[in-house]
Amino acid sequence: MTGHGGNIYEASRRSGIPEEDILDFSASINPLGVPKSAADAMRAAVDSLCHYPEPYAEGLSAHLARLFKVSVDSIICGNGSAELIYLLPRALKPARALVPEPTFSEYARACTASGASDVIGHRLKWEDNFDISAEAFAKAIIEACPSGNHGRKGAGRQSQSRGMAFLCNPNNPTGRLVPRKDVLAIAEAARQQACYLVVDEAFIDFCPGGSVVKEVEKNPYLIVIRSMTKFYALSGLRIGCAVLHPEVSHKVREFKEPWTVNTLAQRAAAAAIGDAPFRKASLRAMAAEKSFVERQLRRMGISFVPSKANYYLLWLERAPEVRAALEKRGILVRGCANFAGLGPRFLRIAVRSRQENTILMEEMGKICAHLS
Amino acid sequence: MTGHGGNIYEASRRSGIPEEDILDFSASINPLGVPKSAADAMRAAVDSLCHYPEPYAEGLSAHLARLFKVSVDSIICGNGSAELIYLLPRALKPARALVPEPTFSEYARACTASGASDVIGHRLKWEDNFDISAEAFAKAIIEACPSGNHGRKGAGRQSQSRGMAFLCNPNNPTGRLVPRKDVLAIAEAARQQACYLVVDEAFIDFCPGGSVVKEVEKNPYLIVIRSMTKFYALSGLRIGCAVLHPEVSHKVREFKEPWTVNTLAQRAAAAAIGDAPFRKASLRAMAAEKSFVERQLRRMGISFVPSKANYYLLWLERAPEVRAALEKRGILVRGCANFAGLGPRFLRIAVRSRQENTILMEEMGKICAHLS
Repeated sequence: MTGHGGNIYEASRRSGIPEEDILDFSASINPLGVPKSAADAMRAAVDSLCHYPEPYAEGLSAHLARLFKVSVDSIICGNGSAELIYLLPRALKPARALVPEPTFSEYARACTASGASDVIGHRLKWEDNFDISAEAFAKAIIEACPSGNHGRKGAGRQSQSRGMAFLCNPNNPTGRLVPRKDVLAIAEAARQQACYLVVDEAFIDFCPGGSVVKEVEKNPYLIVIRSMTKFYALSGLRIGCAVLHPEVSHKVREFKEPWTVNTLAQRAAAAAIGDAPFRKASLRAMAAEKSFVERQLRRMGISFVPSKANYYLLWLERAPEVRAALEKRGILVRGCANFAGLGPRFLRIAVRSRQENTILMEEMGKICAHLS
Repeated sequence: MTGHGGNIYEASRRSGIPEEDILDFSASINPLGVPKSAADAMRAAVDSLCHYPEPYAEGLSAHLARLFKVSVDSIICGNGSAELIYLLPRALKPARALVPEPTFSEYARACTASGASDVIGHRLKWEDNFDISAEAFAKAIIEACPSGNHGRKGAGRQSQSRGMAFLCNPNNPTGRLVPRKDVLAIAEAARQQACYLVVDEAFIDFCPGGSVVKEVEKNPYLIVIRSMTKFYALSGLRIGCAVLHPEVSHKVREFKEPWTVNTLAQRAAAAAIGDAPFRKASLRAMAAEKSFVERQLRRMGISFVPSKANYYLLWLERAPEVRAALEKRGILVRGCANFAGLGPRFLRIAVRSRQENTILMEEMGKICAHLS
């Protein structure tokens, strides 16, 4: 059990409903599905599966470097962004970690696994829409990593860095976006404290213009993680990358395992990131569906956090019952009880196609009416 | 650069020969290629790529548990065996590591990355065909992990284990097989010293009856790694597993990253391991090709180590020149200069199809004649 969304397999075993009949709103994936360009690239690569993949995804890295306008040394590809979330603390060994609450739970787990002695939660408030204040977060970084001797030696030959702060932008599960200039202000504060700031931009493709990826070569303490499993719907194939200053990248590569990105993921991602029509169609469809979902939620009087991403955080008095009733009908939504800083009354729903969104909204409406 | 074999991409960039025209004898993959059963399973799964994979490959693990006749708790699936080679020392934190020389170089790298203070080489001798003596290896384990206080506390909250010894069986790059009873004797010595013995059976499918996988539930210090990327030619897709005592497996799972095994790899592997006709055809073809290759090598007077696997370690006076000349013709063989305990005069060649083996032998013959 990971406690994450998107586990249609477990839901199918539990409900007896076949996997293909489950409507999954618990993982936030582009409803347009895998781009045709990527599917074609995959099919063309099937015959080469008997060969090892490029050990460090060199070809795809070159594509990404051009896309992000950084040097190829700044790119490290991973088996989904999950590999990178674990690799960074393993390589850079932060003594302390700072994570917003709520946010994606793997950051804290990765830092604990890498031996961080403290994982400090930075509580966000519902009354602020769970927004991160740049000023407050910078202050938290200064408190977590006060000025003083930079770096300290850990056990054996491995040196430890002072700290690592995580910023999921837009944040999961709230969908709130920290503006670029605020992210850069936080990154500057982090640099001054010699604390790494890891900005996880897993959903940033849904917020054009929001990325700070081009800035990594100016600040060695700024590290950006990107994912191609959400916007390009390559979740089952696993592909992501870290974008970071070449000097830091060099240090991280010492800990990188070879061959982690499979050949199909490398080929599919290279095709997908060049697919401008898919990008445009996705953004247009998402904008229309988000308006529809927001209208429906307002109509039903369900509280939600205004979101810049392809999902919404909802609050319902009887969320656990609503979730259970939906699951019986083969509809998965993400319970949020295991997000630090939330509770059992929060749910996260992905935005999907009009047909699917209509079903979800209708079923939620019926269930809420029945429960009240 | 990994310095490993199988990098057709780099060879293609260097030589200008298209990837698909390169004959790759530098990676040791079943020449029959991906089983049709696995390719069909992959094709059927393409539509589900927009969903996350099962987080810990639960379905495939159940298949493997039945195959190996162990409990499902004993199975941890990985993104190729490489993930597991790194995961085990990361989770079990051996203070010291013992590795044969020559053997697969990632064991030493993984232990160093996990903070082992010593990686001790156990030198094998050419005059013994690089055979591992069970007695000598057990003695080396006792020397590396002398009796005394079991386990010690490392930095922070993480406890360190005493040691971890690696046994690649059959060994890469020699193809020499340690008999089951000897592996079990070594495992028993390891248990007495509270030292983990990791038996990497990446190529054991080519040696039916050689595996000790069924024994892990009797000895918590015995850990077996299996790979499906060699026998089932799923190298580009990445899939392997660790088989270990449920108590140790529990400890290792704390460090396991979710979603590391992509959906296609899970489906392809489940189909492949049930494919008895493919298994039989592979073993028959391999036996015939090995006889052919051995006859040709003897005819040309090229020294080789008798091998139980699908590759041979060769010794040639002018190996570097032979390798370079082959590469110019689009034929890759594995140079062994970067295997500890070997040197520039060793080459490793995979056994492939009759047509390909014939080309390699003819070209080697011509090159050797030209050089002498």
